[in-house]
Amino acid sequence: MRPKIYLFGDSITEESFGDGAWGASLAHHFSRTLDVVLRGYSGYNTRWALRVVNRVFPPETAVGSGGAPLAIMLFFGANDACLPDRCSAFQHVPVDEYKQNLHAIVGFFKNRWPTTQVVLITPPPIDEVGRLLHPFVENTLGLPERTNEAAGVYAKACVAVAVECGIPVVDLWTRMQQFPEWQKSFLRDGLHLTQGGNRIVFEEVIGKLGETGLSLETLPVDLPLITEIEPNEPLKAFQK
Amino acid sequence: MRPKIYLFGDSITEESFGDGAWGASLAHHFSRTLDVVLRGYSGYNTRWALRVVNRVFPPETAVGSGGAPLAIMLFFGANDACLPDRCSAFQHVPVDEYKQNLHAIVGFFKNRWPTTQVVLITPPPIDEVGRLLHPFVENTLGLPERTNEAAGVYAKACVAVAVECGIPVVDLWTRMQQFPEWQKSFLRDGLHLTQGGNRIVFEEVIGKLGETGLSLETLPVDLPLITEIEPNEPLKAFQK
Repeated sequence: MRPKIYLFGDSITEESFGDGAWGASLAHHFSRTLDVVLRGYSGYNTRWALRVVNRVFPPETAVGSGGAPLAIMLFFGANDACLPDRCSAFQHVPVDEYKQNLHAIVGFFKNRWPTTQVVLITPPPIDEVGRLLHPFVENTLGLPERTNEAAGVYAKACVAVAVECGIPVVDLWTRMQQFPEWQKSFLRDGLHLTQGGNRIVFEEVIGKLGETGLSLETLPVDLPLITEIEPNEPLKAFQK
Repeated sequence: MRPKIYLFGDSITEESFGDGAWGASLAHHFSRTLDVVLRGYSGYNTRWALRVVNRVFPPETAVGSGGAPLAIMLFFGANDACLPDRCSAFQHVPVDEYKQNLHAIVGFFKNRWPTTQVVLITPPPIDEVGRLLHPFVENTLGLPERTNEAAGVYAKACVAVAVECGIPVVDLWTRMQQFPEWQKSFLRDGLHLTQGGNRIVFEEVIGKLGETGLSLETLPVDLPLITEIEPNEPLKAFQK
C-alpha cells in the first residue's frame, strides 16, 4: 500500500486541487510514490478543527492504509486571524487560544501516530485592498475583516508552536513578502492563492518535506517504471 | 471515513494530477465528498495491469478505508494499441487478448468488491502527425507507432467489453472526434491530453458517474459547510 500525506486546513487547502494549485501539484510530483489526501474545510479555524480532528482522522485511518501517514500538513490560522470587531468576527480565535489549539492538534497526531511528521504552515500575508474588493460576507464597515499585521501575529505564533513542538514549519507569511508585488502576484482576493502563490506553497512544502527526508529520492516507486521494463522480456519486471 | 474513487490506468492517468488535468479536476470537484486516488502507470498495457492488479488493490484497501471503493475508472488501451511492427511493439497486446484482459480485471474488481462501480474509458484517438513529431523512443522507420485506426479498434473492443459486463463506458475515441481540430486542441503530442482534452475527459467522467448516481447531489458532505455554521453559535454545528 502506498504511504499517505494529509493536507489538513481551511479553504486554502480545500481549493488546493484546483488548476495548478498546491495540493494537486504535490499529488502530481509524488504520482508514483505516495497519496496526497485532501482534508480542507473552508472557513474553519483551529477551534473548530480541534473539535473535529478525531472525526477527520479516525483510528481506522491507519488500518489497511499503509499504516500511519508519512506526514500531515497542518495549515490553519487565516480564519483565526479575522479581527474580532469586523464582519467575519465569528471566525476569530484569540491568538493565545490559537496557539493552544495548534498544540492540541499536534498532540493529537503525535499521540495517534508517533512516527508521523507533522508540518505546520503559517497563514499567508493579507492584501487589505484585495480583501475590500472581494468580501465574503456583507461588509458595511468599509474596513477589511483581516489585516496583514494581524495575520503576521498568528504566523509568528504558528512558528513559535513549531519551535515548542520541535517540528518543521513553512513560514508562508514571511516567505511571500520577500517577493515584490506579492499582494497581486500571489493573492487573487487578498487572501486566497493565485497560480503563482500556489507555486510558492508547493515549492516551500516540497523543500520542507525534503529536509525531513521525504523526497522522490528516498521514497520507493510503486511498481516498475517503464524505463525498467526490458523490451525483449517485459514480464520479467513483474516476477518479484 | 470518506469514500474513494480510484483511477487505474496508464500515463494518461499517471499525469492526470498535472495543471488542470482530469484527475485533479475530479478531486477538486469532489473536494468535500470523496477521495480520488491515483493509480496511473506510464507505459502499461492490460497484460501488465492484469499481472499487478492484486498488488495495486490489495484486500486491505477496503479495511478501515471507508469500505469498498465507490468507483474505479479503468483506463487502458492506448499502449495495447501500439502496432506490433513499429517502434513501440513491446507494449502491443493483440485486441482479443486486450478484451480478455479487461474482462479479467473487471472480474477481479467484481469479485473483490461486488458493490463497486467499475467504469471503462476507451483509449483516446491518435493524431499520427503529432506522434511522429514527439516520439518516445527512437523511431527509425519514420512511421507512427500508433495509428488512429488501430486505437479505434481497441476503443470498440473496450465498448464491447463494457456491454458484455453491463458496466458504463466513456467512449473517448468517438467523443473527442466529434469536435473540429481535435488533433491539436485535445492532444499535445498526438496521444497525451492538452488542458482541453483533460476538460473533455473530466466532463465525460463526471457525466458517467452522475448516470450511476454518483454526484455532488447524492454524496454526503464531510463536516458542516461554512454556510451551515451559525455565526452566533458556531459550535452548535459540531455537536452531533
